[in-house]
Amino acid sequence: MAEQDKVVLVIGAGDATGGAIAKRFAREGYIACVTRRDAAKLQPLLDEIHAEGGRAHGFGSDARSEEDVATLIETIERDIGPIEAFVFNIGANVPCSILDETPRKFYKIWEMACFAGFLTAQAVARRMVTRERGSIIFTGATAGTRGAAGFAAFATAKHGLRALAQSMARELGPRNIHVAHAVVDGAIDTAFIRDNFPERYAQKDQDGILDPAHIADSYWFLHAQPRDAWTFELDLRPWIERW
Amino acid sequence: MAEQDKVVLVIGAGDATGGAIAKRFAREGYIACVTRRDAAKLQPLLDEIHAEGGRAHGFGSDARSEEDVATLIETIERDIGPIEAFVFNIGANVPCSILDETPRKFYKIWEMACFAGFLTAQAVARRMVTRERGSIIFTGATAGTRGAAGFAAFATAKHGLRALAQSMARELGPRNIHVAHAVVDGAIDTAFIRDNFPERYAQKDQDGILDPAHIADSYWFLHAQPRDAWTFELDLRPWIERW
Amino acid sequence: MAEQDKVVLVIGAGDATGGAIAKRFAREGYIACVTRRDAAKLQPLLDEIHAEGGRAHGFGSDARSEEDVATLIETIERDIGPIEAFVFNIGANVPCSILDETPRKFYKIWEMACFAGFLTAQAVARRMVTRERGSIIFTGATAGTRGAAGFAAFATAKHGLRALAQSMARELGPRNIHVAHAVVDGAIDTAFIRDNFPERYAQKDQDGILDPAHIADSYWFLHAQPRDAWTFELDLRPWIERW
Amino acid sequence: MAEQDKVVLVIGAGDATGGAIAKRFAREGYIACVTRRDAAKLQPLLDEIHAEGGRAHGFGSDARSEEDVATLIETIERDIGPIEAFVFNIGANVPCSILDETPRKFYKIWEMACFAGFLTAQAVARRMVTRERGSIIFTGATAGTRGAAGFAAFATAKHGLRALAQSMARELGPRNIHVAHAVVDGAIDTAFIRDNFPERYAQKDQDGILDPAHIADSYWFLHAQPRDAWTFELDLRPWIERW
Repeated sequence: MAEQDKVVLVIGAGDATGGAIAKRFAREGYIACVTRRDAAKLQPLLDEIHAEGGRAHGFGSDARSEEDVATLIETIERDIGPIEAFVFNIGANVPCSILDETPRKFYKIWEMACFAGFLTAQAVARRMVTRERGSIIFTGATAGTRGAAGFAAFATAKHGLRALAQSMARELGPRNIHVAHAVVDGAIDTAFIRDNFPERYAQKDQDGILDPAHIADSYWFLHAQPRDAWTFELDLRPWIERW
Repeated sequence: MAEQDKVVLVIGAGDATGGAIAKRFAREGYIACVTRRDAAKLQPLLDEIHAEGGRAHGFGSDARSEEDVATLIETIERDIGPIEAFVFNIGANVPCSILDETPRKFYKIWEMACFAGFLTAQAVARRMVTRERGSIIFTGATAGTRGAAGFAAFATAKHGLRALAQSMARELGPRNIHVAHAVVDGAIDTAFIRDNFPERYAQKDQDGILDPAHIADSYWFLHAQPRDAWTFELDLRPWIERW
Repeated sequence: MAEQDKVVLVIGAGDATGGAIAKRFAREGYIACVTRRDAAKLQPLLDEIHAEGGRAHGFGSDARSEEDVATLIETIERDIGPIEAFVFNIGANVPCSILDETPRKFYKIWEMACFAGFLTAQAVARRMVTRERGSIIFTGATAGTRGAAGFAAFATAKHGLRALAQSMARELGPRNIHVAHAVVDGAIDTAFIRDNFPERYAQKDQDGILDPAHIADSYWFLHAQPRDAWTFELDLRPWIERW
Repeated sequence: MAEQDKVVLVIGAGDATGGAIAKRFAREGYIACVTRRDAAKLQPLLDEIHAEGGRAHGFGSDARSEEDVATLIETIERDIGPIEAFVFNIGANVPCSILDETPRKFYKIWEMACFAGFLTAQAVARRMVTRERGSIIFTGATAGTRGAAGFAAFATAKHGLRALAQSMARELGPRNIHVAHAVVDGAIDTAFIRDNFPERYAQKDQDGILDPAHIADSYWFLHAQPRDAWTFELDLRPWIERW
């Protein structure tokens, strides 16, 4: 395996953000390994990266499954290259009154947005510590910094993810693993926002929603930081966003 | 049921803190309903409260079981009285490197310290909103405010609990439910500390560890606050504690 | 001087909150020493306390003047009694766009709400450390925890005050001085609110604004805490307040 | 004045960090305007920038003087070019027990690290809003996020600066002015650290202290962010730093 065969692994490349991150790292020469539960849906992203001359591999993998995660990491490290950068980018909010939230949904939101982050980041960290280098970046949200009415489940999961990131940063930093947490605050330019929040999406005309490519630039910035000046946390927010 | 038959429900009265809270509220005339998984172990606490002339009932109940929780709340509300104050007081840390943590333990710590808080507080809140009054108090920890090396699982759970508390406070406050979160920062005067951390326990001589009765005083203070001046969060810490 | 001649010193007893705190401590047997720039305006408060059988002294004193502060503390400690509790309760916001704020006003707001806190708390702390006991409580505000448009000057001052409180707590806690910070979040029942924000004041009917007597109860609670379970910070907020 | 004559103004270019920032922006084509109280001492920095083919101007200016600040901004905007990026980079800590701190020093530390930030940032913001663009970056410190024993004066000043930054960000963001705050946490590679903290400086061998050039890279990153994905705050910390 050549020195240059460095891998970025993006867990949750099913959305615009994960895809943009994979493309950004691929342009820097990284082999992009991307996952989502249904591998077939990754083909358009892989095609885009290949069309740009980049290298990419897609994996159908459930980040909540310990077995899937173990297989994924083992396969990548054995067949493709060392994971030098890792991005955990899944988690979805389904707002609900605390009075109506079902235990099952409360758990599922946490399992997806937090537990899967633990499973995947841990598996990758175990590889990185043997090489004494690597970056682990978590996609956070405003709900990770404050709770809100109707957001109990999502805020619980995202606060948990931030606590995981901070705990890992404090433990693994001195082992030369850069752990970071990006607080994305605002709507992202996705099909979901376009279809469901047309008024919000209309703000795109004035740069009022986040361009996934710009989020990706920040992730690359984090990964590229020299170790004497690492950032643990930064926020990303459109200029007109109230906060 | 007489007007005075107000109930305080303490989930996790197996430790010194939960027991002290139950006793404190019982002294104020509340009927203390206390739980732990093994009901038999609650007998000494019940005896203490009865000896002081208070009223108390013990329940063997697993706070992580939706069914147990439903039965518990139904039984208390039907047979004993309206739950006017609720305290969630369980959660244990078992420090571990993020590299060695097992998924099972990571989940179990969260299930106990966070998910059980959701299950029980939600069940109680549903009753309280019909009466438009009540207090819900969560026992937090420093790990709920910052992550640390070796604390990934506990910090994830406790951050989640704090996010749950904050989300509930913002949603239920305007419905006259007082939700609060106490950050206990320091060792508590318990058999566990005495037996396992003798040097820490020796600080008791100079008030260097928290007296459960004083924690209980703060919980009563929170419950007794008039609604024009509610506290969401306070910290409790021995004077010599570094923070 | 008899053992019972303990003094509470309230800097800024010109408003309802400072007055209520003085009355609360006077009811507990403390000699209330209260200040504002114009001593004559303290007479109604002194009369109230005396009418209740309490002891109180008023002082015209400018908390921003090092000389005034030195004289004040010297006089009280020499002629009245040891200051066992200290409350810093001044600071006023005059919202203004950052573009229009004058340097003079920016400074004045800080001098009043923060620098005076340093001057007075330091002078008192120097006495307390010789006795190795005492409480120092600062009245904070939401602006001390987050900045906001139009609030640059006040947020700067109140953040500064909170940093002062936290630094003092960490330094003086281990010397048995309890330093605390109360974040008052919401309108208080004062003539100012009544006259200038009638819609806000109308919320009084439903307990939507803070009763100074209840704020005072919390300050007493803080002072009375045993040292194994001290609170550094608590928030106080009406139930219907959005936050 | 040509379109390309964009100015970066660095207040406090007397230290390694300010100088590195000026050099970084000069390399991007910006005209670096740098200040310190003694203009003569800026010559080496100006020489360095000129030697690299960059453009730079030095100004002897006291950032605490309203008059100096007005003259500075007027001169730059009239004779050199529009200030597109602004960096406030002054403030020094002189640790001291709260019991020994003099009012004069407490004030001086605040005047330098906070009040000067208000004076200069306001003057620049007034120009930027007329053009509806620009970046304002404040150099923060850990003391701006938490108080500590012996740090009362510095923590008060740095908390104030952070509150100013946050208030300005919330007010000016929607006017297309990007306000950001960088929390520098750790020793910086300066002559001061080398001469006074040799043990700390020895960590340079393992990248244990911050390289000013890397801090500068982060400031450029902040300035270059497109407005749909602005960062308000990021921290910068050596990998081995405990936090």
